[in-house]
Amino acid sequence: RINADRLWDSLMEMAKIGPGVAGGNNRQTLTDEDGEGRHLFRKWCEQAGMTMGVDTMGNMFMTRPGTDPDALPVYVGSHLDTQPTGGKYDGVLGVLAGLELVRTLNDLDIKTKHPIVVVNWTNEEGTRFAPAMLASGVFAGVHTQDWAYDKVDAKGKRFGDELERIGWKGDEEVGARKMHALFELHIEQGPILEAKGKDIGVVTHGQGLRWVQCTVTGKESHTGSTPMSMRLNAGRGLAQITELVHDIAMDNAPNAVGAIGHIDVYPNSRNIIPGKVVFTIDFRSHELDTLNGMVDRLMAEAPKLCDALGVSFEAEIVGQFDPPEFDHGCVKAIRDAAERLGYSHMDIISGAGHDACWINRVAPTAMVMCPCVDGLSHNEAEEITKEWAGAGADVLMHAVVETAGV
Amino acid sequence: RINADRLWDSLMEMAKIGPGVAGGNNRQTLTDEDGEGRHLFRKWCEQAGMTMGVDTMGNMFMTRPGTDPDALPVYVGSHLDTQPTGGKYDGVLGVLAGLELVRTLNDLDIKTKHPIVVVNWTNEEGTRFAPAMLASGVFAGVHTQDWAYDKVDAKGKRFGDELERIGWKGDEEVGARKMHALFELHIEQGPILEAKGKDIGVVTHGQGLRWVQCTVTGKESHTGSTPMSMRLNAGRGLAQITELVHDIAMDNAPNAVGAIGHIDVYPNSRNIIPGKVVFTIDFRSHELDTLNGMVDRLMAEAPKLCDALGVSFEAEIVGQFDPPEFDHGCVKAIRDAAERLGYSHMDIISGAGHDACWINRVAPTAMVMCPCVDGLSHNEAEEITKEWAGAGADVLMHAVVETAGV
Ligand SMILES: NC(=O)NCCC(=O)O
Ligand SMILES: NC(=O)NCCC(=O)O
Repeated sequence: RINADRLWDSLMEMAKIGPGVAGGNNRQTLTDEDGEGRHLFRKWCEQAGMTMGVDTMGNMFMTRPGTDPDALPVYVGSHLDTQPTGGKYDGVLGVLAGLELVRTLNDLDIKTKHPIVVVNWTNEEGTRFAPAMLASGVFAGVHTQDWAYDKVDAKGKRFGDELERIGWKGDEEVGARKMHALFELHIEQGPILEAKGKDIGVVTHGQGLRWVQCTVTGKESHTGSTPMSMRLNAGRGLAQITELVHDIAMDNAPNAVGAIGHIDVYPNSRNIIPGKVVFTIDFRSHELDTLNGMVDRLMAEAPKLCDALGVSFEAEIVGQFDPPEFDHGCVKAIRDAAERLGYSHMDIISGAGHDACWINRVAPTAMVMCPCVDGLSHNEAEEITKEWAGAGADVLMHAVVETAGV
Repeated sequence: RINADRLWDSLMEMAKIGPGVAGGNNRQTLTDEDGEGRHLFRKWCEQAGMTMGVDTMGNMFMTRPGTDPDALPVYVGSHLDTQPTGGKYDGVLGVLAGLELVRTLNDLDIKTKHPIVVVNWTNEEGTRFAPAMLASGVFAGVHTQDWAYDKVDAKGKRFGDELERIGWKGDEEVGARKMHALFELHIEQGPILEAKGKDIGVVTHGQGLRWVQCTVTGKESHTGSTPMSMRLNAGRGLAQITELVHDIAMDNAPNAVGAIGHIDVYPNSRNIIPGKVVFTIDFRSHELDTLNGMVDRLMAEAPKLCDALGVSFEAEIVGQFDPPEFDHGCVKAIRDAAERLGYSHMDIISGAGHDACWINRVAPTAMVMCPCVDGLSHNEAEEITKEWAGAGADVLMHAVVETAGV
């Protein structure tokens, strides 16, 4: 068993860097605080006898050697960056649980055949530089590095420049490392495990995603002086499509979800009828056909609704990935570990995207989930218990050690 | 007849101050550009033999003496400030038409019994310092001056401080002036006159207004990992209330209008279900009962819709005025002038609020409207023709002269 107190202390210590305003964290990627968090993690890993490699996307790889010099490493980790109003566990738990399992192996003087590498992926959150899971995406060959370097934040700063500025652009070629397997522990970010009273989620699949950015264009005009019969109100297009998206998702539930989270209204003035509304639909399903079917239905029905309102409808896919299915062997290692350790567990589908979803394309991969209070995440009030964290890290350690061989 | 070319030249000259980015104007209240516009207007008025008074709200009063020293002046004017992306005519036409009618009376050597005062009201637009029609509201006793002085813009600058900074805080007590009558010429800011092919709108009433700021609160959670059955999506509250507002307005049309123009979504992130949406409904009608009935129906039905969604609904009236009815004598003076001059005309209700709506509470008041292309206003593309401007100014002059006596 890992040392749950030590893991918890490290989580609380890391949370002091880039504190939020309401008990959580603001340690966004490639800020000074991100740099500071990386230094602390590096110090801890080196104290645990690991050596560091950093690639040109800033991904950190901390290696505990194995006994077989030819064996590919088993990777374990997640991300240290947070949302602007993020919690203390989203990502961080997965990285520090990797560190904790190495500390425990050191304590017990256990050596593995395959090396173990604890990894911190750069910019999982994607809030400062969209999209999410950027550096693991480059590692897996989904994006090019040049494309990632050119991403700019809201102040116009380039990803590539900010990576150099904080001093974490390494010299390893991204994606050159070969992996025996990768495991990621992450909080669920949803309410299922807590509701079902389970300690452990064995993640078998992830949901695929389609982000459809829609632009509804009507005519900006004065709310007071434009007769009802002469209006082209883009806000009504948004309203009807909000309900359409909900209907489409409900018709495919529980195998799909969908909602509109981001909405920009132009000119957004109290006495002006919206002339344009730009918003993004987030559709997800772990079934590829279902996912594509939802987009098809949107594309068939939304233009008709808008036509009837006299407003125009345009749509563009601005983000997408197909549903990942995790490696059966790795998934089994997790399920067996939970069973052996006596933790209650269930198979679960990851609702969110994770670095593991990209790495799954280039290496045998699986994920462990632990519950979070009320399913709350991407919120400073995000909370987990020390016991949940400990159970997740225990299962992670056992799956890693079994895969790495003793 | 006024000199339409001279009026047009003055409009174009004024539009050079605070040019916009797309052919319109950005001459917001109490900016350096507002100060510059005021100086130009003052120069023109003094060249036409008028003398200036300025009150402590920065309202400018340019007087052409009358022949009877005891007669109260006839006031005529509007506002020189613009929206951030405003047009060249909204407000400006009413002020410069006042100047033009004085120039014409000078040319024709016509003296009136009552003095004529051309007025420029401070901060009609209300975009920089809410609410709209601020200084005419203080003049009419609707707001106190202290309350107005304490209004702050988006950068935290106070109205009172900015008024001093640009050097246009006068020493006259606000509202001390007594008026024989007030006339305001304004572009319609709606499509009715153009659609009906009329040169002149004789404004008999204005619409009353209720701004209802609503807050729908659900629960912010991850779009991917929250099952459909466990969501509290505040965006759906917005969607259903958008349609409810439309239905309420349609059920009262053509005697009412309503829409939602301003919407803030929290946290407004692509993969987060909206936890809170704050938006303002703008309801208007020229019938007081209709106006109040619309708000009552909203307050009865919106909570039910939100209840069914599991989200909460709160509402607050953040702006309101009752429908003004303009002075019958002044309205008749306008209608008679249009008739006499041979312009096509119709009675019309002002859809928007205007300085004249407040002054109507303290003096006999009426308004003239001229068409604007496509009903477009609060938009840099706002356009009118020289002929429309000339017709409006002609009718204005005849109504003013008839009321001021020769
Ligand atoms: N874990 C997480 O929130 N990732 C961001 C991408 C997503 O929206 O799923
Ligand atoms: N004329 C004008 O747009 N005034 C602003 C107040 C309103 O919305 O009616």
